[in-house]
Amino acid sequence: MKKNDKILLGHGSGGRLSHELIRDLFVKHFSNPTLIKQSDAALLQLGSTHVAMTTDAFVVDPLFFPGGNIGNLAIAGTVNDLSVSGAIPRYLSASFIIEEGLPFEALEQVVITMAEEARKASVEIVTGDTKVVDRGKCDKLFINTTGIGEIRAGAGNIASGDLIKAGDKILVNGFIGDHGMAVMSARNQLHIKAPVESDCACLNGLIDHVFNATGEVHFMRDATRGGVGTVMAEIVASRPWGIQLFEAEIPIRQAVRGICELLGFDPLYVANEGKVVMVVDGAFADKVLQQLKSHPLGQDAAIIGEVVERHPGKTWLQTSIGGNRIVDMPAGEQLPRIC
Amino acid sequence: MKKNDKILLGHGSGGRLSHELIRDLFVKHFSNPTLIKQSDAALLQLGSTHVAMTTDAFVVDPLFFPGGNIGNLAIAGTVNDLSVSGAIPRYLSASFIIEEGLPFEALEQVVITMAEEARKASVEIVTGDTKVVDRGKCDKLFINTTGIGEIRAGAGNIASGDLIKAGDKILVNGFIGDHGMAVMSARNQLHIKAPVESDCACLNGLIDHVFNATGEVHFMRDATRGGVGTVMAEIVASRPWGIQLFEAEIPIRQAVRGICELLGFDPLYVANEGKVVMVVDGAFADKVLQQLKSHPLGQDAAIIGEVVERHPGKTWLQTSIGGNRIVDMPAGEQLPRIC
Repeated sequence: MKKNDKILLGHGSGGRLSHELIRDLFVKHFSNPTLIKQSDAALLQLGSTHVAMTTDAFVVDPLFFPGGNIGNLAIAGTVNDLSVSGAIPRYLSASFIIEEGLPFEALEQVVITMAEEARKASVEIVTGDTKVVDRGKCDKLFINTTGIGEIRAGAGNIASGDLIKAGDKILVNGFIGDHGMAVMSARNQLHIKAPVESDCACLNGLIDHVFNATGEVHFMRDATRGGVGTVMAEIVASRPWGIQLFEAEIPIRQAVRGICELLGFDPLYVANEGKVVMVVDGAFADKVLQQLKSHPLGQDAAIIGEVVERHPGKTWLQTSIGGNRIVDMPAGEQLPRIC
Repeated sequence: MKKNDKILLGHGSGGRLSHELIRDLFVKHFSNPTLIKQSDAALLQLGSTHVAMTTDAFVVDPLFFPGGNIGNLAIAGTVNDLSVSGAIPRYLSASFIIEEGLPFEALEQVVITMAEEARKASVEIVTGDTKVVDRGKCDKLFINTTGIGEIRAGAGNIASGDLIKAGDKILVNGFIGDHGMAVMSARNQLHIKAPVESDCACLNGLIDHVFNATGEVHFMRDATRGGVGTVMAEIVASRPWGIQLFEAEIPIRQAVRGICELLGFDPLYVANEGKVVMVVDGAFADKVLQQLKSHPLGQDAAIIGEVVERHPGKTWLQTSIGGNRIVDMPAGEQLPRIC
């Protein structure tokens, strides 16, 4: 970016503009070996303990949507970033920026939701901060949660992608695109007969469930901003292998497909808040799939693709009608403020 | 608070309304033994390591002021909260909420300042997040930093106040009220001949310097929102001892005193961002004072009061003209958005 440029909505989208801002600004100036590794959580050593740390700001609009509110998001987002980095989430901080005039009742509802979600995920909210800004200077409520956890023995390298190899299979634990379309329909007050609910959920229980049965997971990432498509584009970049996805295998609800067609979105790039993409050894893929399916958050899990030797560095999608198209990283945002 | 109440600016002030909101909302619902202890940082165990964790949102207005910008604040605020809790600050997260249209140049200046301040304080920024909200939905830039560090051997109880006893002396490392008045004069474009500069600084070096020479520190807290007066009112509440301050001993710059008189502020309640209040064993107070004075950030340190057996649970200030007045916790804010 140049001096005279201005920040655009797309710089917060998780797509190409976000990556450029991170590279040209934050990584450039904050430069240190931990930050440069760029994954969902930093892997650190404190005393003799291997610790993961991650942070997220939540600015979702509206605060309440079918299936959840900003409070669930703030817990699940951070718990999931720790989990997919190979850590057992333990402690969260919660910091609130509140617009003067917000009804106490709304704030309390969010806080109760956060408390419930934290209890379900067995994490503790141990420290916090509250700032109030004058009316018109923020949009009702923004929340930051930062989480720390202990890195699972032997899982310290799982977020890097370095364990992925040709022949691995790509799995997802259920329907994609629910969260983005739930927020979108709430924001635009679309009157849909069967409203789509957000899939917002803490995935640490599901991930434990898989790890307790098999260690053959080579990579995990939660498919939030930018969706499954962006995760694929991120992990394949500069690798000696490629990814082949099969559109027909990707679980997408009929309602989500319908809203996406109506509004012109590609479900592959729509945000999820309770979906993890796993890359697992091909020989164990069916076992992991069964293990996912035996957990309440993985009942609709599917094998959606594979790691291939052809087209290294690229992700291809075999469409339902048999064609092939490239899955690239989107430049800016499809849907601002969905988390 | 009742269901129909609305959040006021005072709920973010660090005064009585803030304490009530924390007690009636956050502590009530997030309830766990760590959170209930309510200090600047949570003391945790991760594996075999004793860890401190703290979080802060920064919403200062304006972003740039004499002596610093939101970037220094975001580093120093979190480093200092860890330091006064007895921890060695190690790692920070940094999360940004940016208003669409913010000039890249302003953001870069803030990021460069953060990087410099982190380097000076020997902490690493290891993970981050960026959200962009539409124009008019936040005020230019909000930053959250969350920090973790290792607790200094034997210092795990220093933030509780339980070590304080009658006969202890109260010290501060220099002039108070500079930060609040620097922001205030920048915000109101007061044209002052010799502008007051913020005292914003990371205090971990100074605190190390004192701890390396003497272990007789019974309590530390950085006097940010609510100033030295609020720190005193917080630590004395429900204790079997009282605090006596001596106005004539409290270092206040002439310019700060002048602006405070002009605008009707009490410097005792004005925010600082580079000031620590220490309570130390009376027999070692002079030694600690000399140690403070021998560090660049403590040259104007002073003994400003003592812990007394009379008036338990109360702080009294002996005024310069010989009277005595009570130092209570302010209800709401004097100065919103100074950090």
